[in-house]
This record gives sequence, C-alpha cells and structure tokens, in this order.
Amino acid sequence: MPKISDKGMAMPSSPIRKLVPYAEAAKGRGVKVYHLNIGQPDIKTPEVALDAIKNLKEDVIAYSHSAGNLSYRKKLAKSYQKFDINITEDEMIITTGGSEAITIAFNSTLNEGDEVIIPEPFYANYNGFAIQTGVVIKPITSSIENNFALPSIKEFENLITDKTKGIVICNPNNPTGYLYSEEELFRLAELVKKYDLYLYSDEVYREFCYDGNKHLSVMNLPNLEQNVIMMDSVSKRYSMCGVRIGCLISKNKDVMSTAMKFAQARLCPPSFGQIASEAAIETPQEYFNEVYEEYIARRDFMVAELNKIEGVVCPNPKGAFYTVVKLPIDDADKFAQWILESFEYNKQTVMMAPATGFYNTPGLGKNEVRIAYVLKIEDLKNAIETLKYALEEYPGRVI
Amino acid sequence: MPKISDKGMAMPSSPIRKLVPYAEAAKGRGVKVYHLNIGQPDIKTPEVALDAIKNLKEDVIAYSHSAGNLSYRKKLAKSYQKFDINITEDEMIITTGGSEAITIAFNSTLNEGDEVIIPEPFYANYNGFAIQTGVVIKPITSSIENNFALPSIKEFENLITDKTKGIVICNPNNPTGYLYSEEELFRLAELVKKYDLYLYSDEVYREFCYDGNKHLSVMNLPNLEQNVIMMDSVSKRYSMCGVRIGCLISKNKDVMSTAMKFAQARLCPPSFGQIASEAAIETPQEYFNEVYEEYIARRDFMVAELNKIEGVVCPNPKGAFYTVVKLPIDDADKFAQWILESFEYNKQTVMMAPATGFYNTPGLGKNEVRIAYVLKIEDLKNAIETLKYALEEYPGRVI
Repeated sequence: MPKISDKGMAMPSSPIRKLVPYAEAAKGRGVKVYHLNIGQPDIKTPEVALDAIKNLKEDVIAYSHSAGNLSYRKKLAKSYQKFDINITEDEMIITTGGSEAITIAFNSTLNEGDEVIIPEPFYANYNGFAIQTGVVIKPITSSIENNFALPSIKEFENLITDKTKGIVICNPNNPTGYLYSEEELFRLAELVKKYDLYLYSDEVYREFCYDGNKHLSVMNLPNLEQNVIMMDSVSKRYSMCGVRIGCLISKNKDVMSTAMKFAQARLCPPSFGQIASEAAIETPQEYFNEVYEEYIARRDFMVAELNKIEGVVCPNPKGAFYTVVKLPIDDADKFAQWILESFEYNKQTVMMAPATGFYNTPGLGKNEVRIAYVLKIEDLKNAIETLKYALEEYPGRVI
Repeated sequence: MPKISDKGMAMPSSPIRKLVPYAEAAKGRGVKVYHLNIGQPDIKTPEVALDAIKNLKEDVIAYSHSAGNLSYRKKLAKSYQKFDINITEDEMIITTGGSEAITIAFNSTLNEGDEVIIPEPFYANYNGFAIQTGVVIKPITSSIENNFALPSIKEFENLITDKTKGIVICNPNNPTGYLYSEEELFRLAELVKKYDLYLYSDEVYREFCYDGNKHLSVMNLPNLEQNVIMMDSVSKRYSMCGVRIGCLISKNKDVMSTAMKFAQARLCPPSFGQIASEAAIETPQEYFNEVYEEYIARRDFMVAELNKIEGVVCPNPKGAFYTVVKLPIDDADKFAQWILESFEYNKQTVMMAPATGFYNTPGLGKNEVRIAYVLKIEDLKNAIETLKYALEEYPGRVI
C-alpha cells in the first residue's frame, strides 16, 4: 500500500473535530448542546445578497475571471473607501474564502523552510496552511494577563533569523478578540520595514470593533505598500461563511502577478458566491447597526457573567466575536470532552474550543478555552450557567 | 522590497492568458473572435440546478461539513452506481472544483521532490498544481500519429525511479479527447500494482464518451482499491464550471483521513454550488441525450472539416470535447498570436490554445493546437473556414 505524505502526517486534526462525536452522543441522549466552539454566527445573511441569488439571470454558470468578476472587484474596491483604504480592482484577487487568500499569499512569497512569526494564540488553521505551503511558524506568546496585547518588539526581534520572511497578524484577532492599537501597528510597521519582511494581515473581522475603537488596516501603514498583503473575507461581515468568498489585496505588483498565476491554476472563485458578495455591498447600514448592537450586548453580558464565576478570567475583547477565557481547570481538552460526555445541567451542555489548539508552543493554553459569542443572549445565559455548574463538579478543578 | 517565492517564479503563466490582450484588441477592431481555446461549453446549465438556487430556502449561508453536505454526498454516491462505481458517502470529499481535488490528493500523498508520471500532452494546470505541492512531473509522450494512445508500459518503466510515487491520467483526456481502452487501463493497473504506486485519475469528462465506447473508471480496476484516487467535477457534466464543485474519491482510508485534514483547514466547499450540484443529480436523461447528440454532431463536423484542409491532421477523439490538431505551421504560439493580431476573414478570427502549453518536454507541440468544440456548428463552420484561410496566408506556413 503506498504511503501518505509527510505533510499529511504533520497536518493537525481540528482540535474541535475530536469533540464532535461527544457532542453528537450528547444530542443522542436528548441533551441540548450550546455551540460556543465555532465562528458560525446565527445572524441572518443580508436579504440583498440572498435576493441576488434567488433572482439569478444567468443560464450558463460559466467560469469567471480568475481574479474574480470585474464588476465585483470594482464595487469592492470602492467599498473599501469608507475605511480610507484606497485600492483599485487590479490590486485584488477574489479568492475562495479567506483560507485561499492565505495559501496563495504564502505560496507566492515564501519558500520551503521560510519562517513567519505569529503572535499566539492564533487561528488554528494557520498551522495547516503553513504545513501545506512548507512554511515554518515561529510563535510569539501573548498572554491573557496582558489582554493578549502585541508582545514587545524586542521579543519579535529575538525570533528573527535569516529565514524570517514575514509576520502574520489577525486584527481584530481570532481567537482572542484583541484589537491592535494604532501604536502597536506602527511599532510593527517599523520592525517590518527594518528587516524588510512581509506583513500578512488577516482583517476578516474589520467590521467588528467595539467601544468606539477604530480599526487601522495595514493598508494604511505609511511606506509599507510593498510589504503588506491583506486578506479579507465576506464570511463574517455578512454572516455568509458558506459562500466561500474572500480576497487577497496588495499594492506590490510582483506579489499580485505571482498570486495571479496561482489563481489561474485553480481557474476561478465560486460564481454564485461572487454574485451574492457583489450584491451584499449594498447591504443597508441598519443591518450592520443591528448586528453591532447585538454583539455588544452579547459581549457585555458574557464578560460580566463569566467573570462572576469563581476562578474564571475573561478579558474584555474589543473586536471580533471571540474571547479566550481562563478557567479553573487542569486540562482544557479533557474538560471540553468531559462537559460533553459526562455532564449535563437541565438537559443542557456546552461545546467549547480548547485553547491548546490555538497555541503553537506545547503546553500553553491548558487552562483556557475559546468562546465564540455567536448565540443570542438567552442561549448564552443558559450556556454560561451550565459552564458554571460544570466547573463546580469537574473532577480536574484547580483553584 | 521582499522577494517572491521560488514556487511563484516557477509557476507557469497560462499559455492562453498571453493571447487575451490580442483577442481583446481584435474585438476592439470589430472583429468577431471564435473561442476554441477554452473548455467553457455554451450548453445551458440544467434547469433543475438553477431552480434549486432560485428557490433557496436558507436565510443563513453557513459553513457546510468540510467533506461537503451529507445529503449531497449520499445522493452523489448513489448516482455513481449507474457507472457501476460502488462508493459510500464516506469515501468522498466534496472539493472546490476538480482543481482542489488534485491539490488535496497531491498534498495528502506526495512529498517534496516525489515524482509522478503523466502522459503528455496533459492538462496544463497539472504543472501549477505540481509546483504548488512540490511534486516533480515526469512526462511520457503520446503522439498524434498514434491518436494519443497510452504509451507502452516499457516506456513507463523506463521512467520509474525510487522517487516515483504515482501516475496521473485524465480519462477521457483533456487536451487530446483520447479515451483509454479497458486493455490500456488493465496494463496500467498491473504497472501500478507492481511498483505500488498511486493512480490518480481525473475523470471529469466521464459522461462524454462517443461511438458506443464505454468509460472504465479506475475505481473498477480489480485489486487496486488502495492505490486509486479519483478526481471528479460537476463543471463539464452540467455545464456549470463556475459553481466550483468537484470531489475526491478513494477507498484508501489513510488517504481519505489525511485528505480530510486538508479539507478541514479550508473549512468547506461552496454552499451554493453544493445546492446546485445536489439538485443537478436529478437532471433528466433527455438533457444528456441532447448534449451528447450536440457534441457528436460538432465533433463529426469538426473532424471532417479540419481534415479537408491541406496539411492539417485531426484525430477522431472518442471522448471529452477537445482535440489536438496538427497544423502546417512553424510555431503554434506565434500562429495563435498572429491569427488574432494580424489576420481576419469576413471580420472574424479564431482563438486557439497552442499545444506547447500541454507538453512538459520542451519543443514538443510546436505545430499543434488544442481545439475545444464547445461552439455550435454554425460558429464552428465559420471558425474552421477562418482557420483555413489563415493557414494559407500565415507567413510561417510549413508543408
């Protein structure tokens, strides 16, 4: 029997995926499972996007341009102006989700064995994308005590070798919900410039910034145009994760012409998703206002309730819809399994993502979980109450 | 300014893409351009698929299962039974087009530097997928004199080294239209078994087999279950290339569980495309009959007309909707550009794919082009007439 690849062996299994059978079994026992584990919002997709699909005019669903439909790119470029991001339709390639934007960016700019520095905890699938593209991730640890702020530039510099080719940030951050300040981004820009690195910025949660904080895109860092590659997605903005439409943006012409070769090889991004995404640009502002109010309410509720539980520390995230929470437990993987397998309260239990999957450094995140506040407050209330009683009963409780 | 990657440098530009500005310029001069260069059929997408999209019920377009919707996989597995292909919903992963099926298959099974043998001419994007995944392609030349039949097993064996891990076939073939016979496939199977290789089979043109010839899937080669990986797509079958839905199929459990890790990293295939593809399974047989009749008529017309032109050799393809044609020219790339740039007949010209892009061995295919017979007969007639006069005038004519 022929062998599977080294890359395939090294690819991590989704840390959440291991929990799925336990969640299914709980449901089989008639237990309601609250899913705090995934970034799949319960918010409705804008009607204007769904209507565009329902009113489909085409009778042949043909290949689109490999960079995406021109009409979509033009409107999308224009729509970035409200964030003071000035780009043209030629400085973007529409991708199959934000995921493809990242793999194309890595493939276009990094060689086998090249290193990128990423503040941890970070989006777990970066590990998979790095393995796929032969890139080595050097983690730099941010800590819950510091609300997961950007580590000091000195710490970054300590990690830089002649293999270091870039820094990856996710802003606002998944999994921590941390929103980088202008000052942090300017410091990072200086470092990137000093070592002539790439700065890859995953900004798919741009619209989710709270408490009057403003998001600064890497596209607006001065004198960094040739170094910056921005990745975006419609998944969270319009609650349409399934359409698989993202984009890759850079003003570096060599990067874009190289990325285009990878884009051509896979022919084109999904046509229906492009139609929905182009229409979604016309989503009325009230939609975003409502979503914003909803998330603020959920966050405030969640942070307050979690911090009332003895031994729990929940920072107040300024963006996205996640938080990494410290729990009084011995092992987050064990706890996340135990609560599904052996615990219920009022016929309810909770699925959470153990934070270990978001740290690259072994041993970190063992007493942390990521919670996505993508459920309505009533459900959040039940979920947090269940978590509270579970923590009291859990045999591995550590105070 | 940071560098781009070695992979990015090595990625080929699409050979057709270079011709696009010349085609655009011709259109700008009021010249009608017949596109024989791409596999984008003019056939309508089945109504049942479009209706499923127009009648969309969902109000949140959520992530699907990473392997694709269970309902779709179950129906798809069942639909393969009419080809005597027996697989379950767990032996397939729905992918973003056939393209992603190939990159996931390579990533799951091949290491950096591993070699795969591919009969050339072959689908040009295999080059890109190989570069992306670090795989080395060893071409084995099939020739127009032999109608592009499978080269002898002896020739394959001559190429096998300890780096050889697989053989890739596309059946029916793009670009040649060649349909492998049962005997050829059995010979290949023996070779694959003898050296314990993978056999990757791209079967996206399965439904396009002519003259009473039956397609044999690699899934039906005896005792080869652990070696075979099949790639498929809805793009051509239902003339919906833009939906970007394909699938990866294997009975090798290690391959599938590894492929699943890559599938999870990119989250899921496009939701709308899955809805259309699931509905398309109910496409009435008349649709396929009509399509079949149409392609047979086009092929017969094209083969007859092309072979009437002095110095032109067009084999009679038994499958797909392409043919590689020998022309009395010095250089296919020059000719394909010249006919767009400097020639017109009755305000018409033709865009074709130079065959050089489909050969891996430098220098081959210089007097061949790939023609996709994806246009209606009236258009094919005008296109071939235009080609005939162009060949008479072309300064690089070689008889």
